[in-house]
Amino acid sequence: MLPTPTRYSVTAACAEGSTALNAFDNALLAARIGNVNLVRLSSILPPNAVYDPDLQLPPGALVPTAYGSIVCDAEGELIAAAVGVIISPDGIGVIMEYGGKCSRQEAHDTVSKMLDEAFARRGLTAQEKRIAAVEHRVERVGCCLAAVPLWY
Amino acid sequence: MLPTPTRYSVTAACAEGSTALNAFDNALLAARIGNVNLVRLSSILPPNAVYDPDLQLPPGALVPTAYGSIVCDAEGELIAAAVGVIISPDGIGVIMEYGGKCSRQEAHDTVSKMLDEAFARRGLTAQEKRIAAVEHRVERVGCCLAAVPLWY
Amino acid sequence: MLPTPTRYSVTAACAEGSTALNAFDNALLAARIGNVNLVRLSSILPPNAVYDPDLQLPPGALVPTAYGSIVCDAEGELIAAAVGVIISPDGIGVIMEYGGKCSRQEAHDTVSKMLDEAFARRGLTAQEKRIAAVEHRVERVGCCLAAVPLWY
Repeated sequence: MLPTPTRYSVTAACAEGSTALNAFDNALLAARIGNVNLVRLSSILPPNAVYDPDLQLPPGALVPTAYGSIVCDAEGELIAAAVGVIISPDGIGVIMEYGGKCSRQEAHDTVSKMLDEAFARRGLTAQEKRIAAVEHRVERVGCCLAAVPLWY
Repeated sequence: MLPTPTRYSVTAACAEGSTALNAFDNALLAARIGNVNLVRLSSILPPNAVYDPDLQLPPGALVPTAYGSIVCDAEGELIAAAVGVIISPDGIGVIMEYGGKCSRQEAHDTVSKMLDEAFARRGLTAQEKRIAAVEHRVERVGCCLAAVPLWY
Repeated sequence: MLPTPTRYSVTAACAEGSTALNAFDNALLAARIGNVNLVRLSSILPPNAVYDPDLQLPPGALVPTAYGSIVCDAEGELIAAAVGVIISPDGIGVIMEYGGKCSRQEAHDTVSKMLDEAFARRGLTAQEKRIAAVEHRVERVGCCLAAVPLWY
């Protein structure tokens, strides 16, 4: 089987670029996950995964990551992204992510409610919640990204 | 290399949620793949993979999965998703998936034709076909999901 | 951790199909990556990965792949996809991909500029650039695909 990750961090950043993919790439760099290969996940925090804000990711590594993002080329538009984790006392967690045309606070609150619903549906109570959110006013092509990279 | 999966199941379910991602999460829970991390695939059944309707997936595991889904927030809309596998006598298989605004039967038939075309193009004949399909009448935010999780 | 790939190829192809997913599947077959499971990546070439135009991919294998594609059902439309890698003298590389309604040349030039921006932002200079691009005039449902499969 594929090994289940044991560590994670929570990150968010914004950037401009000359194309959609460059803006995304630049946001990944700003979030310090720009030199690895993100493998996108839907979105469970493995039991007892350890929060590590200084994950050491080898360049080019395949990094399982839950993320939300938005790219927008409408000058002056406010965009935002948020990601969050919610963890139960026995170590089980859920990740939720969001990207949209709204403020940082709205993206934060949306993810917070999504996390609550995910835990309510599972009959779990939260011991801890960790959310990262960013907003950006588009100049040319802007990207907001919020991610939970998982690692070992 | 990444290990090639050796087992698979076929599942489909629908759910409501208060956001698109919660509806998707709830559909995953209803399909019994809600507590793992789906790694999305395009879409080959590894040779001689064994059908196992009771896959034991560790919580948080990285689970390679082919899936189709649709999320819709138009009250009263009928949505559907289907997934299927087609297998040749020598154990090679293809997976096809579909999500759209239609009935369960239409989603089923669409996937069935897609599987036939995939096998015709490969010059393979079918020994077995397995399709799962669901439909759902949207209340608030609805999701239909059909998936083939692969495992070991 | 997931093993970091050590080899890669660069491929592009077009195909028709009777559905969007079949057109995509047929383009994968034409690009010689149709019998494996693509695991989509964002998009770094691992340090010192070796270019190998004859990657041997076991059927059904999980193949980390960066790709761009477009599917279009507007008869007569010109579509194109391109993918490229840019590599620094010390072996670090970036992958960029693009799919859109344009000519092969435009897709090629778009990817070339994207690669330049990705390297400029990282402060790297290019030793080598490798781009594959294709175009296709849609008949019924057409797909253009350009991919960098990574392997071991």
